[in-house]
Amino acid sequence: MMEHIGLENVLPAQIEARSFEIITEELGDTPLVPGTEPVVKRCIHTSADFDYAKNLVFSDGVIERALEALRQGAVIVTDTQMGKAGINKKKLAEYGSEVICFMSDEDVAAAAKENGTTRAAASMDKAAALDRKMIVAVGNAPTALVRLHELVRDGALKPEVIIAVPVGFVNVVRSKELILELKDVPSIVARGRKGGSNIAACICNALLYMLDERR
Amino acid sequence: MMEHIGLENVLPAQIEARSFEIITEELGDTPLVPGTEPVVKRCIHTSADFDYAKNLVFSDGVIERALEALRQGAVIVTDTQMGKAGINKKKLAEYGSEVICFMSDEDVAAAAKENGTTRAAASMDKAAALDRKMIVAVGNAPTALVRLHELVRDGALKPEVIIAVPVGFVNVVRSKELILELKDVPSIVARGRKGGSNIAACICNALLYMLDERR
Repeated sequence: MMEHIGLENVLPAQIEARSFEIITEELGDTPLVPGTEPVVKRCIHTSADFDYAKNLVFSDGVIERALEALRQGAVIVTDTQMGKAGINKKKLAEYGSEVICFMSDEDVAAAAKENGTTRAAASMDKAAALDRKMIVAVGNAPTALVRLHELVRDGALKPEVIIAVPVGFVNVVRSKELILELKDVPSIVARGRKGGSNIAACICNALLYMLDERR
Repeated sequence: MMEHIGLENVLPAQIEARSFEIITEELGDTPLVPGTEPVVKRCIHTSADFDYAKNLVFSDGVIERALEALRQGAVIVTDTQMGKAGINKKKLAEYGSEVICFMSDEDVAAAAKENGTTRAAASMDKAAALDRKMIVAVGNAPTALVRLHELVRDGALKPEVIIAVPVGFVNVVRSKELILELKDVPSIVARGRKGGSNIAACICNALLYMLDERR
């Protein structure tokens, strides 16, 4: 039925596993940092872009730190509704956590207007006012990273982990380097221009699934 | 203030325009189908991946057809909550329309289970039961495209336009070719493995903004 129109017959439940097999095959002996493979492969799975085998930078111990934070119920703060939509909220709820996006909040829009900044930057200020353990996952706005860098540097916010993967052309490359310069907060960074809300979400999901496998 | 840490000083409202300038510069004389430029450039803007200058295939007249459909209030049916989150719903509402995603519906989950198919395929059956003018935008599931192809071929569904941009490794390439084989429904297809919910959403947004410019 399927084969005659040139389709591979894969059961719905097996599609993801088969995809990861293909990715593993095609990666061949591309060197990956031990322990980061599930994250790298999920980024490739989400984008069909093997550049993620090369552009992802992981701080020492960041995976363990992120898993421990999630195990302890750290919230995920992200900079787009799209990233929020892509994160497995059911899975996150199993760990007593949730994902928060302040981008549509009226007070954030008002603060951005007043300060002549972006809503993304203002949403980081709102995150800093949260008194919770958190992972910050930025998939869209370099301005969020620039503000986050300031907040961390000034001691106003200390996330467990920063996932810094905005995409784009204006200040994106440099904003990610700023996060890499932070010594006290471990990070996962997609160096260069590439990234996106989909990449931010899939990194969070990869971490959640890694945690699941250890249960 | 910004320059000393290596950032380009661009006002929040100018970031997108500046990004498009950079994309246009870097595209140089890469040939694009006349009239499709805003769509192609927005895909590059969303992914920082210039492959979209080469892999997007546009049926003759598809842009005009899509704009006319949106002007007439065609709904957008998409296959992920993430795609739905990324589409500019405020703008769509200005044209009396909305975006619909059936993926989380219980009847869709039940139908998929009963038929041994994916929820994405079952969601296309549910779309076929809608008696509305529609654009179908598939960013994730090739199984949605395979079912969509059957429904169109069998006369059960006739969307105004199909946006076929799932990403991945299993049946993705072939499912997009099936859509290109449909003669009666114009399409925008990201040929090959690349695409995603973000790409589906940004193509819809590009069309909405093109419509805006003509008002």
